[in-house]
Formats: sequence, structure tokens, C-alpha cells
Amino acid sequence: MELKIPLLIIVLFSCNLVNSRREPSPKLKNVVPITKGQIFPKPQNQVTFDNRNILNKKNFHFEYSKESQVCDVISIAFNRYYKIIFGSQYLRNMNDVPSQLKSDASSLNRLLVNVHEPCEEYPSLESDESYTLEISTGLASLESKTLWGALRGLESFSQLVVELDDGSLSVNNTLVNDFPRFNHRGILLDTSRHYIRPSILKVHLDAMEANKMNVFHWHIVDDQSFPYVSYTYPELSKMGAYNPYTHVYTSQDVKEIIEYARLRGIRVVAEFDSPGHTESWGKGVPILTNCYDGEKPTNEFGPIDPTKNLTYSFLKTFVKELTQVFPDKYLHLGGDEVDFSCWESNPAITDFMKEKGYGKNYSKLEEYYMQNLLDIVNEVSPKTGYIIWQEVVDNNVVVKPDTVVEVWKDPWPEEMAMVTNLGYRALLSTCWYLNYISYGDDWIKYYNCEPMDFKGTDEQKSLVIGGEACMWGEYVDGSNVISRTWPRASAVAERLWSAQNVTSVRDAQGRIEEQRCRMLKRGIKAEPFNGSGHCEYEVEN
Amino acid sequence: MELKIPLLIIVLFSCNLVNSRREPSPKLKNVVPITKGQIFPKPQNQVTFDNRNILNKKNFHFEYSKESQVCDVISIAFNRYYKIIFGSQYLRNMNDVPSQLKSDASSLNRLLVNVHEPCEEYPSLESDESYTLEISTGLASLESKTLWGALRGLESFSQLVVELDDGSLSVNNTLVNDFPRFNHRGILLDTSRHYIRPSILKVHLDAMEANKMNVFHWHIVDDQSFPYVSYTYPELSKMGAYNPYTHVYTSQDVKEIIEYARLRGIRVVAEFDSPGHTESWGKGVPILTNCYDGEKPTNEFGPIDPTKNLTYSFLKTFVKELTQVFPDKYLHLGGDEVDFSCWESNPAITDFMKEKGYGKNYSKLEEYYMQNLLDIVNEVSPKTGYIIWQEVVDNNVVVKPDTVVEVWKDPWPEEMAMVTNLGYRALLSTCWYLNYISYGDDWIKYYNCEPMDFKGTDEQKSLVIGGEACMWGEYVDGSNVISRTWPRASAVAERLWSAQNVTSVRDAQGRIEEQRCRMLKRGIKAEPFNGSGHCEYEVEN
Repeated sequence: MELKIPLLIIVLFSCNLVNSRREPSPKLKNVVPITKGQIFPKPQNQVTFDNRNILNKKNFHFEYSKESQVCDVISIAFNRYYKIIFGSQYLRNMNDVPSQLKSDASSLNRLLVNVHEPCEEYPSLESDESYTLEISTGLASLESKTLWGALRGLESFSQLVVELDDGSLSVNNTLVNDFPRFNHRGILLDTSRHYIRPSILKVHLDAMEANKMNVFHWHIVDDQSFPYVSYTYPELSKMGAYNPYTHVYTSQDVKEIIEYARLRGIRVVAEFDSPGHTESWGKGVPILTNCYDGEKPTNEFGPIDPTKNLTYSFLKTFVKELTQVFPDKYLHLGGDEVDFSCWESNPAITDFMKEKGYGKNYSKLEEYYMQNLLDIVNEVSPKTGYIIWQEVVDNNVVVKPDTVVEVWKDPWPEEMAMVTNLGYRALLSTCWYLNYISYGDDWIKYYNCEPMDFKGTDEQKSLVIGGEACMWGEYVDGSNVISRTWPRASAVAERLWSAQNVTSVRDAQGRIEEQRCRMLKRGIKAEPFNGSGHCEYEVEN
Repeated sequence: MELKIPLLIIVLFSCNLVNSRREPSPKLKNVVPITKGQIFPKPQNQVTFDNRNILNKKNFHFEYSKESQVCDVISIAFNRYYKIIFGSQYLRNMNDVPSQLKSDASSLNRLLVNVHEPCEEYPSLESDESYTLEISTGLASLESKTLWGALRGLESFSQLVVELDDGSLSVNNTLVNDFPRFNHRGILLDTSRHYIRPSILKVHLDAMEANKMNVFHWHIVDDQSFPYVSYTYPELSKMGAYNPYTHVYTSQDVKEIIEYARLRGIRVVAEFDSPGHTESWGKGVPILTNCYDGEKPTNEFGPIDPTKNLTYSFLKTFVKELTQVFPDKYLHLGGDEVDFSCWESNPAITDFMKEKGYGKNYSKLEEYYMQNLLDIVNEVSPKTGYIIWQEVVDNNVVVKPDTVVEVWKDPWPEEMAMVTNLGYRALLSTCWYLNYISYGDDWIKYYNCEPMDFKGTDEQKSLVIGGEACMWGEYVDGSNVISRTWPRASAVAERLWSAQNVTSVRDAQGRIEEQRCRMLKRGIKAEPFNGSGHCEYEVEN
């Protein structure tokens, strides 16, 4: 039934377009030039002066100021950003670049970095990402409270440096005082419908850093496959992965991805969605509901069976493992789209419902399961917080006050109002489902979605911690996930980082165009997004 | 105005989907297994037996039979297909493969190739691509009338060879008697809205060969940019390209692409669309119409000015160059979407219209231009045939009887009937505009489009020479053109090659799934097309 909808749309769609082979480029495109050396997303405060400073790869250095904390993450970032600024595979002729100065330019030989607070090992929802960047004739300094802010400042600095026509690298005197509007700026990737190799996930994390996104929501397993290799229940991937050797994430893979993300100030929030969307779990552990056709069990399975003791002994062990493997404070527990029909068909569950006095109210049974799951999390890892899809609270499950609720259904303004009215923190993703592709400049629709556009008190608004762009995996894998996600997700990145009054689509287009070309230059294959144009460095292969 | 349509659709679209985050995989997906060792597109005739033959990279050879013609194209293809069969980057352990035979398998040490007719240098619309492939215990032979048929047979042979679980390569005894349903099986790529590097175009040609497509319709220039480097009018790309050095196709690039295509039995049909879609031409040669606002010329330009002598002296020289650079018999002359408003505003053109007695009928002026253009082609290169978009005949321009008319507008069945009724040969592309993406399994829509579904006599039907999938360049470049075109274009490839009664979407899905994985294995990043699944070899980077 769901399939019909896209097909119906396809029809409307082609019918509407048959009379024009190619859309004329939207008019605004003709008047919006691509920006050069603009920071993306647009910073909260920036002043730019005309004086130019020339960087030379032979004598430029990133250095800590005497007072600064010294953090491995930042020291490693110095190397990464040096390569981004000077070592681009495309700047083949850097050695030929005139090192003598232009009359009107100073030489900038170092960026002095000062991190005030002690180094944290991992970023968190509470991390302060603010930074101050000051470039003035021959001098450049980056001040930040935390190392995470310094990372954002290094990204901004690298974006301010532009290649002049003579091949030299120049940065204008500039003052930047910047901080994100929202603390949670996430992207969901789904590695169950299709498997995505770790090497591709790392390119995605590079893109997230370039766009100052800070949460990789890893929807790692689902009905279709279970690529996560568990050390407590190895049968899960052995039986549930597309291939238990080539289409899995070993503990080593997971460690590497978490570390790769940590070095970029990105949190990895793993989602193990239950009790629905668990078909692949059942192949390894017998915790799913047997669906019945009258008296007879069919060979089909439904959601996790909330009435089995095995379910909870399994969860106790498995959740403990997850809280040990994934260092982030938050675990995403899913809880969406639970199909009740199989539960209804199962006699043992029917008895259980009677016994509990739930009558025919199966959301009570869902509540019972979620409550048990949350209690297990609290028991095995009291420090762990959880993120859940909106249905859990829609079904009145009592969750910890510090729970984060992810809103994904329309009408989202009502849902955001309801969730925050209950005092829960909220994440918006409804309007940022990037997997639903359509023809044209759809980034504008993502850009125009404002998370605060719902009726609520200031207190309610203060509970909105950010949002997530979602790229579900039905039609993406390593072949297209990068190009399809970027730069469309850049529109979301700016909405979540920049000030609320940064709303001009015209201005954003020029910035996103530069950002796309910037990503191409860094080896991230971001696709064209607005009808025509080109980048200085195009994809080679 | 056009832009609104996609946006409108986006709205309908999201509204229709908000209640489901992910579509359940269409049911048929659960029952259609991926095929193994199936020839794609489905051959006209094939019989398969159980006996298996093992190929060993150390002693397998492609050889010509004694009677066979020896053609460079085939000799070079031997090397290419040896690498495809044995040299896959993924078959790392081929040396470890047991060379001793399985008890139930023979050893196949050579494919004997027999090409009957003398070698042609280039494929043509009339080329015979039929072949007979016979694999019987320890013996394999490929017979074809022409070298082009042999190429198709080599592709089929490579697809029949499968890797067994022990890593050895096996092919069953098989009889294949195959030929294409249509002679013109094309794909249009647009390199003007966005530039696509030659290296990417070559990957696209590899994909075309793997899918037995045989015409690369190169829409090389348009309003947005003029990347073709002309030796008679170098100003065209110097002024009209995005960058005259990095975003152009030099004569060397063009030669290489034509040769790369020739070696794969693919025709390169270049399109130089006029008199509309020529904005980029005007930057190098002053042949465009000056648009007027009342008395005053605006700084805007419209279509080519049909009233200037310069127009025709330019065309005479330029068309001569094109017929020399592009060896194919056919040149695509465009002729679509001519906007009359600028012509109407221009006083000189108004006088010309009076003088000619065209009144206000500007399609008469278009006819005048096209007629002159066609006459020029006939004069400078009598052997050259032309392909034109449907508007040219819609506007009653008299064209040579051997002209090919490309239909791209709806309602296409009426147009196909009209065009063939006039006695012209027809190409269908309306239903295969792959650039119009939409969410879901849209390949089914392309697969179900049947070019003969129009009212017409047998004689009219016999004038349908094939069709083309079109990938216009507004939203694609090297970052995504391969993944967005493939395997969606494979649905078109099978419709144009296989018998008319090959219509089962269920069966096609299994074949296309294998074909997608086959392309991934060859380094062609074809995207997922049907909701979930995996390939043995996934994209690494």
C-alpha cells in the first residue's frame, strides 16, 4: 500500500512536467553569485576587513598559546586542517607559489590556539562549541572555552582561506564570534536496509565536520539486516546480517568510527530500535512474537514478544554491552511503528493481556515493554540517557524527565508543542527526511523549516535541543549515500547552527554552492543542487 | 513557473508519506531472488543445461576460428573481457583457486570466436548485432555476422560466468541465439548544465556496454555552457565554457571518447541544439537575436537570429567541422523549445517577417532557419543524416525522408503515430526522462513503457527504430551521474533489446538486481533501486 504512494506521485509528477524538457534555471540563480571564502554555516557574528594575509605552506604553523590546554583531538586536527588548507590533492603547484608577498598583503605564519577548559574525551549534548577567531595583519588567534569550540573554529579558519588567481592562499583580516543555535545537530544514516562500508561512513563524518554537524545518529540495525557484531550475542549478526563476514560492523569497525567521529567533535548515538523493526534480531535470538493464523502459528514473526522472560534477560545483557561499546551518554531506543496485528493473533499474548487487565489496548502492552526496557537501562547503566521516537510518549509511556523525544510525524508543530508541554526535550526530524527525493531545488524546503514554529511558551521553546536530517536506507548505499545526502543536508546544518533570523534563500544558495565545491575539493562527492553551475574542481572518478 | 511544479509535488509528496517513515519493502521483493549468471538484457533465445564448465585464468583463451575475420575491436575486447571475467579487483585469491576439476565439471579452456563479415570501423544504425553463443562440455563458440554482434556475445559470455563458493569460475552448457529488438538504444547525457569529466563519461560508456546500449547521445552544449572546443571557432568555448581550460572537451578528449565508444560498439551522436538553447554560443560568435524592450535593445539575447547572413556563414563552417570530427552518419540538430518572444521584440526580424510575408507566424521563421540549416548540412556533407526533436516536424519543416525524429513530449502515442504517418523514422524518449527523479521503485514505470503502444499500421511500427533514456544535467555531474543513471537505465536497456513479450516486472527485478551488482563489481557505482538488499561486492570508496 505504501508503495502506491510514490508511484501515484510519479504519475502526477511526469504529467506536470511533460511540456518542458528542462526547467529554466530559477531566476534567482542568475543573480546569486557563488560566495568565496564564506564560513559555513553562516556565523553568529563576523566582521571582515580588506587587509589580506598570505599563507605559505613552508612557514605556516598551528600553535597552542602558552596558557592553552593541549588536547590530542586538537593536535591531530592541526594536521588535518593543514592538509585541508595546503595539501589539497588539487593544489599540485603549491611549490611554485610565489612566497614573496604582494605589496598590499601581510604574511600570516601562525594561528595561535587557546583552549581554556581541560580537555574532555568525548563531546556531549552539553558541550560548548563557541569560539572566537581573530585575524589581524600578520596575526591570527583562536580562543575557545572547550576543545570542541576550537575544532569549529579551525573549520571556520580553513574556510576563510581562499586560493587567489596566482595560486597563493589568502585570508582577510576578520573577527568571528560564533556559537551554534542548537546543541544537537544530527544526521541519521540507516545501515540495515543497505549496508554501508565503514570507509564511506568516514567520508560522511568528514562532511559532517565540514558542515559543523555534531551527532551521527547511527540507525545501525532494523528488520532487513543486523550488521552489528555483538560479543554477548554473536548469533545476532551471524544469522541476521546480509553476510556475517563482509556486511557487518565488527567491534573494531565500531571503535574506529567512534574514534573518527570523536576527533571531529561528533557524537555517535546508536539506535537499536525495538520492539518493532526487529525482524533481523529474531534470526539470532528467539525473542520475536510468533504470529498466528487462528490456531496455527504461521512462520511469520512480529515485534519482540513482551511476555517472554527470555526477552528481558536478553535485553539486560545486550543493553549492558551497548552502554559499554557506545561511549555517548545517550542511547536511541526507537519505539516507533509497532504493528499490533501479530501480537493480537498470538494466544499467549492474549492470555497475558487478560491477566494484566489491558483489555484490547495493545499500546498498554507496548507501554509495558518500553517501561521494562527503560528500567533495564536504568538498572544496568544509571548514567545512560535515552532518545526515543515520538510514539513512546504518544502512547503515554512514563520516561525519565531527561529523556529526549524525536519528532518525525506530521503535524509536527502540534507534536513539538505536546512533547515540550510534557516537559521533555525535543528533536525535530519530520521536515528533514532527505531520503524522500523529488525533482528540483528541494533544499529550499529543508532550509525554510523552522523548528521553533510551533505554539508554546518560552520554557517549551527552551526544551528544543535541535534536529536531525534523516537518510533512510531503502534507496541508498555506498554508491550514492554521500551525493544524495550532501549538500542537501547543508541546508539543515545552517538552519540548526545559524541565528534564527538567517533565512534568506538567495544568500544561502551562494554559500551552499561554495560549500558544495569545498566538499568536492575535499573528496566528498556532494551533488549539484540548483539547476546549473560548476566548481573549480570537479569529480575525477 | 516551472520551478513551482516540482515544489508543489514535493508538498503533495511529503503530505502523503508523513505517516510512514519507511515504506515496507514492496511484497514482490520478498519473493524475487536475485538471479545468478543471467544474461542482461534477457536474450531472445536461450537454453541452459546442467553440465558445468570450469574456467581457469591460467589456461583460458579467447581465440579466433580459422575462418574468422580478425578485427582490432574484437582483439582489444578479448583483453577487456578477460579482465572482467578473471581480473576483478575483488577476486584476490584467484591464484588459490583449485585448478583440478570438480568431478561433475569439464574444463573450458577457450572461447572460439567467428566473425563472418569484414571488419567495419564504426558501428552504425544498420549494424547487425546478432550473435550465437554455444557452450557445450569443454567447448565454447561465438558466431556472429559482424564484429558488433561478437562484442554483444562477449558481454553475454562474461555474464554467464559465475563465481562458485569455492572461488572457481563456472559456466553452464548454454545455447544463446540473440539479437536486439531495436537498433537504436541510446542514452542522452547533457554536459552543458554541468560539466562531466571525460573519465566519468568513460565509466558511463562501460555501463552502456554492460547493458548493450549502443548510442551515446551527447548533448554537449546548451544555454549554460559551451564545453566543445572548436578549431574553426575557438571563441565558442573560450567565451562560452565555464572555464576554457578545465571545463572543456578538447579535440583530443572528443577523439578519445569516440574511440572508447567505438571499441564498445557504441555510436557517439553529438547534438548541437539550435536555434534555441544557444545562449552560450552567443558569447563567442555574434549570431544571437538582440531582444528589444520597445525601441531599446535590452542586453538580453534570444535564439539564433535567422535573418543574419553571418548566421549561415558561421553554420556552414561549423557544421562542416562537426561532420569531420564526429564520424557517425547522424548529427543531432536539436530544434526544440524555440522561444519566439525575443524574435517578436526585434525590429529587424519584424521587417524580415513582413518582407517574407510570414505575418505573425514565427514558426514560419523557425522553419526558414531549420530549412537553411538542413540545406547547409546537405551541402557540406551530403552523406550526413540528421536527428531532430519533434518540434521541427510539428512545425512542418520539410526534412529529408531519412530523417530521424526524436519524440519527447506527451501525449507521445499520438506523436509517434503522427511522425511515423509522415513516413519518418521515430525515436521515443518521453517516458524515459531519468533526470525526473521521484521516491520509490520508479524503474518499474520505465520498464513498463512500450514504444509500440500507439495506433499505427505495421508500416508505421516498422519506422520505430528505438528509444533513448535521457539524463538532463540540471542536477547531475560527475558526483552522481553514474549512480543516478544506473541501474534505472537498465530497465530501458531491456525494453529496447529484449522481445516485446518480456514484460514481467518480477522477473526483471531479479535480473536488474544481478546486473546492478555486476556493475558494482566492475567499478560502476550503480545505486540501489528497490527498497533493500545487498551485493556481494559493495562500494568501497
